[in-house]
Amino acid sequence: MRVAVSGFKGRMGHEVVKTVLREADLELVAVLDHEPKEKNIREIAEFNALDVPVYGNLSEMLETVKPDCVVDFTTPKVGYSNMKTILEHGVRAVVGTTGFTPEQITELRAIAESKKIGALIAPNFAVGAVLMMQFAQKAAKYFPNVEIIELHHDNKLDAPSGTAVKTAEMMAENREFIKQGAADEVELIEGARGAEYEGMRIHSVRLPGLVAHQEVIFGAEGQGLTIRHDSYDRISFMSGVALSVRKTKELETLIYGLENILD
Amino acid sequence: MRVAVSGFKGRMGHEVVKTVLREADLELVAVLDHEPKEKNIREIAEFNALDVPVYGNLSEMLETVKPDCVVDFTTPKVGYSNMKTILEHGVRAVVGTTGFTPEQITELRAIAESKKIGALIAPNFAVGAVLMMQFAQKAAKYFPNVEIIELHHDNKLDAPSGTAVKTAEMMAENREFIKQGAADEVELIEGARGAEYEGMRIHSVRLPGLVAHQEVIFGAEGQGLTIRHDSYDRISFMSGVALSVRKTKELETLIYGLENILD
Amino acid sequence: MRVAVSGFKGRMGHEVVKTVLREADLELVAVLDHEPKEKNIREIAEFNALDVPVYGNLSEMLETVKPDCVVDFTTPKVGYSNMKTILEHGVRAVVGTTGFTPEQITELRAIAESKKIGALIAPNFAVGAVLMMQFAQKAAKYFPNVEIIELHHDNKLDAPSGTAVKTAEMMAENREFIKQGAADEVELIEGARGAEYEGMRIHSVRLPGLVAHQEVIFGAEGQGLTIRHDSYDRISFMSGVALSVRKTKELETLIYGLENILD
Amino acid sequence: MRVAVSGFKGRMGHEVVKTVLREADLELVAVLDHEPKEKNIREIAEFNALDVPVYGNLSEMLETVKPDCVVDFTTPKVGYSNMKTILEHGVRAVVGTTGFTPEQITELRAIAESKKIGALIAPNFAVGAVLMMQFAQKAAKYFPNVEIIELHHDNKLDAPSGTAVKTAEMMAENREFIKQGAADEVELIEGARGAEYEGMRIHSVRLPGLVAHQEVIFGAEGQGLTIRHDSYDRISFMSGVALSVRKTKELETLIYGLENILD
Repeated sequence: MRVAVSGFKGRMGHEVVKTVLREADLELVAVLDHEPKEKNIREIAEFNALDVPVYGNLSEMLETVKPDCVVDFTTPKVGYSNMKTILEHGVRAVVGTTGFTPEQITELRAIAESKKIGALIAPNFAVGAVLMMQFAQKAAKYFPNVEIIELHHDNKLDAPSGTAVKTAEMMAENREFIKQGAADEVELIEGARGAEYEGMRIHSVRLPGLVAHQEVIFGAEGQGLTIRHDSYDRISFMSGVALSVRKTKELETLIYGLENILD
Repeated sequence: MRVAVSGFKGRMGHEVVKTVLREADLELVAVLDHEPKEKNIREIAEFNALDVPVYGNLSEMLETVKPDCVVDFTTPKVGYSNMKTILEHGVRAVVGTTGFTPEQITELRAIAESKKIGALIAPNFAVGAVLMMQFAQKAAKYFPNVEIIELHHDNKLDAPSGTAVKTAEMMAENREFIKQGAADEVELIEGARGAEYEGMRIHSVRLPGLVAHQEVIFGAEGQGLTIRHDSYDRISFMSGVALSVRKTKELETLIYGLENILD
Repeated sequence: MRVAVSGFKGRMGHEVVKTVLREADLELVAVLDHEPKEKNIREIAEFNALDVPVYGNLSEMLETVKPDCVVDFTTPKVGYSNMKTILEHGVRAVVGTTGFTPEQITELRAIAESKKIGALIAPNFAVGAVLMMQFAQKAAKYFPNVEIIELHHDNKLDAPSGTAVKTAEMMAENREFIKQGAADEVELIEGARGAEYEGMRIHSVRLPGLVAHQEVIFGAEGQGLTIRHDSYDRISFMSGVALSVRKTKELETLIYGLENILD
Repeated sequence: MRVAVSGFKGRMGHEVVKTVLREADLELVAVLDHEPKEKNIREIAEFNALDVPVYGNLSEMLETVKPDCVVDFTTPKVGYSNMKTILEHGVRAVVGTTGFTPEQITELRAIAESKKIGALIAPNFAVGAVLMMQFAQKAAKYFPNVEIIELHHDNKLDAPSGTAVKTAEMMAENREFIKQGAADEVELIEGARGAEYEGMRIHSVRLPGLVAHQEVIFGAEGQGLTIRHDSYDRISFMSGVALSVRKTKELETLIYGLENILD
């Protein structure tokens, strides 16, 4: 597939460029950034052996290069209008920005369907994290007693993590409500039993040396089931991006969420 | 549901009796064993507050008591003929013995379908273990690099465990073949890299104090995904038995394998 | 060694009897209980192959049987007076009850030293748990960033567990004070960051199927160190009791705490 | 302390320079390399704000700068002669190269003692890994049933890892010999039970995404004890280097092995 990367100078876009170059069935045909000073990617030391045009204007790039798919990692502000432009040109799109409203998604899906092309928006391309959440959701149907331990580096400001809350939400949809722990349990030191979400408990560990980790622990009479995801590096998102690019060839609609293409 | 338990003096059958007594929507209406000396379960000290007839003949029990479902934990030898008798009497059956041939399963399924009743045969009723295997199979599609560590008490004779091999088989069906490890890796001490199964590696730990545990560890650039099941006690099988009994009401065929009713 | 067991009908005492019988170098010479109806342990079905006298009076037992060591698992009330009686008879003692005052310990130690015999009082005979606490204390000197996760069955009423608090106390003695986590971290759901003890965090998980488990997780730039203890059964205390009995032969004083004989 | 770094252009030496700059009580007073083209470290872009002389000759540096301590990360070939030169100048030394013979160590220790200065040679500065090995050695005395699982990235060629074998050696010194597993256990697939070392078993997991990890799992009746070290980055060695530099001030001899200064 002939792939263009929009936002190629950002941290994620930069990884996407390297991923497209590495994957045998993907070809890098153009890159795009806001007011670039380069004309060709070879002007960047790291890519001096390549010959790929750099564009500052999305429509011009789409009309000139005619890629099979555009991968867009820009900002919530321009993500929506970029995707609209891409789809209206009849080109497949994989977008990694957040902040789309339901109305915007509905509108974009209608365009994708009228053009009969595939598109995917995902706030999270970590296949492993998405599988962890899916598995947790399924297990919660059979094991309503569950606690989450999420572990991050100690610079992280918010607790619990967004992934932990999302996991708890997904489990709550599928789980018989139980308020966990003994009915008359007592916290000798406040906070020992963690954060409560729909009767489940979430514990946030913060330590130097850690990156982003989560354990979902289910307990039942005589058994336990644990699902753990460890994320060390943003490179972990790239297999999800490559998977999404390939998947757009099979689709004639817009999908929201990586979980909906993991079958 | 009105439930009868066949093989009620065996270790599993005994747990099933207690489970049926504990679950509010299940009623124990009869128990069966080979040449029992008791006429009523109340003659057994543990159950002296109950009033449940004991039978030595399956057909007699089915015709007299007319249960909604029979749970059978006997031996591979009699499991097949018991199930046939139960189904021919138009009674639902949950059978926990192994050793059925494909032909026997086909024959029994035909009877269940002609009688329009549900039936289930399962070699393993541990919901947690079955979920672990299902999750591992799904993840193997996206993460072909995977190793299994199974840990058991040190009286266990065979290594790897049956569950580990079953898990590896299920993953192999869904996984791109990769021979794992460095191409030129060297074992300085023989066996360090474990048992090989289709390019995957299985490691068997045996220690006193352990019961039955398994970890399936997936690795990819920048991330890891681990699924672990801990089994401490055969009571862990009972939620799977109760689930199966209830499920037979919804079915009009015979299902082989607990995994096929976990949706 | 010729060993007598005081409080042999209690849950712990009963395990001690079985342990003394199992260990080749220990011989069971007498058992003691409050107003026993048996004269000999053989009157108890489980021990019908033995021939060991049962006593109701400690002094009588000490004078008649002259054991090398008495193991006492009774109650805090009588533990002190029992130990005093035993030591005054010049007999070694291992006592597993809690509630001794510092004055009582000083007094008993003086008796042991004047008689030149060994004695040991321990609130906890789980060698593994004591090692975990010792290791955690030592590691805290080099890794001041540490969190504790303790996991127990969901009938446990208090959180954090006594062992978790004891571990934190021992680490605090040896650890440079740090208030962990980001200075401006925010709990989006109250309790997410757990209980605080001297700047460290303790998280209490409660799930069915669990028994008593604890993880102490240290984090530093580029590395992590984790110490975990799993306790499944009170039988785990018995190796500590046997170790203590043997150790009294080498001592000419009273030791408080199993940790002080683990060198 | 006034510290000089020898081999400052190597990967470890470079980290040591950054560590000395970061630690408030350490001052970088000189750096040394083989035939350097720079005269001052400020000629290197990363360090352009500093003013530290670069030397190509060790004796000249020692005589001109008179540091309190030299940290040397060079090669086994020059490590010995460098250390000898440093000590003979009456300067403390911390050396991170391997390959010293016992005779060389004895000779160097004699010099350190005659000069009444501290020195340390260590093949491994990872405090966490050293603590793991110490704890494992101690626990092996009480828990002779133990298995090691070491997990590394899948480019690693040798299995088991050097750390795993070193850990097993240290445990063997302190452990009652037991051949683990059931006497008549059978490997259904060869290698399942791992590598054998003195009756203990070692399992080597190799997966992409992993760095360097090790678990030592002890099992006994009713309990388990696990010690795990995770190493993500060579920065993890730096706290051990800083600790060693400070320790040389307290010593009047040469110590071999970081474990001997962790009290």
